[in-house]
Amino acid sequence: MVKNEWGNSIYPLVPGHEIVGEVTEIGCKVQKFKVGDRVGVGCMVGSCHSCDNCINNLENYCPKMIFTYGTKYYDGAVTHGGYSNTMVVDEHFVVSIPENLPLDATVPLLCAGITVYSPLRFYGLNKPGLRVGVVGLGGLGHLAVKFAKAMGTNVTVISTSPSKQKEALENLGADSFLVSRDQDQLQAAIGTLDGIIDTVSAQHPLLPLLGLLKSHGKLVILGIPGKPFELQVFRLIQGRKLIGGSMIGGMKETQEMINFAAEHNIKTDIEVIAMDYVNTAMDRLLKGDVKYRFVIDIGNTLMPSS
Amino acid sequence: MVKNEWGNSIYPLVPGHEIVGEVTEIGCKVQKFKVGDRVGVGCMVGSCHSCDNCINNLENYCPKMIFTYGTKYYDGAVTHGGYSNTMVVDEHFVVSIPENLPLDATVPLLCAGITVYSPLRFYGLNKPGLRVGVVGLGGLGHLAVKFAKAMGTNVTVISTSPSKQKEALENLGADSFLVSRDQDQLQAAIGTLDGIIDTVSAQHPLLPLLGLLKSHGKLVILGIPGKPFELQVFRLIQGRKLIGGSMIGGMKETQEMINFAAEHNIKTDIEVIAMDYVNTAMDRLLKGDVKYRFVIDIGNTLMPSS
Repeated sequence: MVKNEWGNSIYPLVPGHEIVGEVTEIGCKVQKFKVGDRVGVGCMVGSCHSCDNCINNLENYCPKMIFTYGTKYYDGAVTHGGYSNTMVVDEHFVVSIPENLPLDATVPLLCAGITVYSPLRFYGLNKPGLRVGVVGLGGLGHLAVKFAKAMGTNVTVISTSPSKQKEALENLGADSFLVSRDQDQLQAAIGTLDGIIDTVSAQHPLLPLLGLLKSHGKLVILGIPGKPFELQVFRLIQGRKLIGGSMIGGMKETQEMINFAAEHNIKTDIEVIAMDYVNTAMDRLLKGDVKYRFVIDIGNTLMPSS
Repeated sequence: MVKNEWGNSIYPLVPGHEIVGEVTEIGCKVQKFKVGDRVGVGCMVGSCHSCDNCINNLENYCPKMIFTYGTKYYDGAVTHGGYSNTMVVDEHFVVSIPENLPLDATVPLLCAGITVYSPLRFYGLNKPGLRVGVVGLGGLGHLAVKFAKAMGTNVTVISTSPSKQKEALENLGADSFLVSRDQDQLQAAIGTLDGIIDTVSAQHPLLPLLGLLKSHGKLVILGIPGKPFELQVFRLIQGRKLIGGSMIGGMKETQEMINFAAEHNIKTDIEVIAMDYVNTAMDRLLKGDVKYRFVIDIGNTLMPSS
């Protein structure tokens, strides 16, 4: 979005769609929050409130959903995100942050967290004892491991980098680790997983992943590579497998996810930075040089402009 | 299989995996059938009976499933199919044909019928009022229309051939018809279907089909084209859609399908031929010149060899 690589950026652009802070002021009709409450805002700040998706608490799939930044708001103004001292948001799109969660390590839950939590539940991969694979160990992937473990599943991290094994098993608590380029490891794991959460946005083959699934297994894709995937459909037909998508989650489920994180003590692994470090952070992000999310300490490092 | 196009045919090959007839003899341990019963055999004649799939009445997904013809049987002999006066089959893989179903128009239910019935149920597309698309109007497609209508859904036939409209609406009872190459028709139907049963084995684009689905819609693929599909995954992610596969059905479900057909008077549209017409029929099949299945009258036209 910063570099307009999707071609739809509107400048001036204020990014930031994982935001936490304290309520400083409320409108006269606000019911859910009071001044001083710890709150968060994720990817959305508006929707139509009347379509089937909105009625079913799936505002994230509303055709008129308004993103937190870079989208036209109800009044025609372009929305600005969280790289900002203050923000004005419709309370419907605000979640409450429980007291036992630290603000900084909770903020990435608002996009990355709900993006992995929602499909684990929707595709029924949240049942204790199921075997769940997680492809890619970045911002989304490391949270997928944490949520899937908290749900009681047995988690296999699937990665191109053997160097991530220790991190996956020891720091994140995964049960096993699979190097996706190692044919022997792949062969040994064929037909062992009930589902896979694929968080990788780079081009990669789906066929080996489908092979890892048991009959009736589910491959959930969360990343969008630049080119289409190749889909060898016999792999879906032979074992009645499916490939599904998922995009963030609705507001009700986002609050449930935050509450689940509070209950299970799930935090993002973060590196807190000052606002003036943000361009360096963007460069490091492109190189994958972060474990696993940068969080900008806006309150202490972004001075109000005069 | 006849021409060894999949490269795994074993000659001499006796085809035929949609078979009906009368029981002429039973083994001493047979419990389900007696001499004179009207019975059918579909795609399978054996499985391991001990894997998770077999235990859950999903013999069709058993890794050791034995096809009705061209596969090694338990004893190492190659199975021979229904182009034959007689057949010996394990009763587990035999279904009962209710009295009110004609044998000839029922026989294609044993593969084509169960192949469309099973995914309609498994993917939850069998609920009255849902809007179901059927792509392709051949042996499978015409049965998909009939079963989906009998389940109470609203059926849209999607075809490349405008010439099939009358047939789809008037003879098969579909509710609407969509020419898949007509951009205006496609545009008008975007986001209108809860699910699609795609029966086409020829190469075709999935993107327009995914566009026809509502949020959370399901595209079920039953045919295997020679080359991989292109999968534009943003279409799955944006509306939490899925692409799933399915392959025939288990024996319990096959009997349920036959009983459902009897209850709802579902018959295949067939052309009955004599055994000596079979090579001509094969040629016509390749040209799509049949509505919708050839059925060979073995009993009256295949003489026992001396």
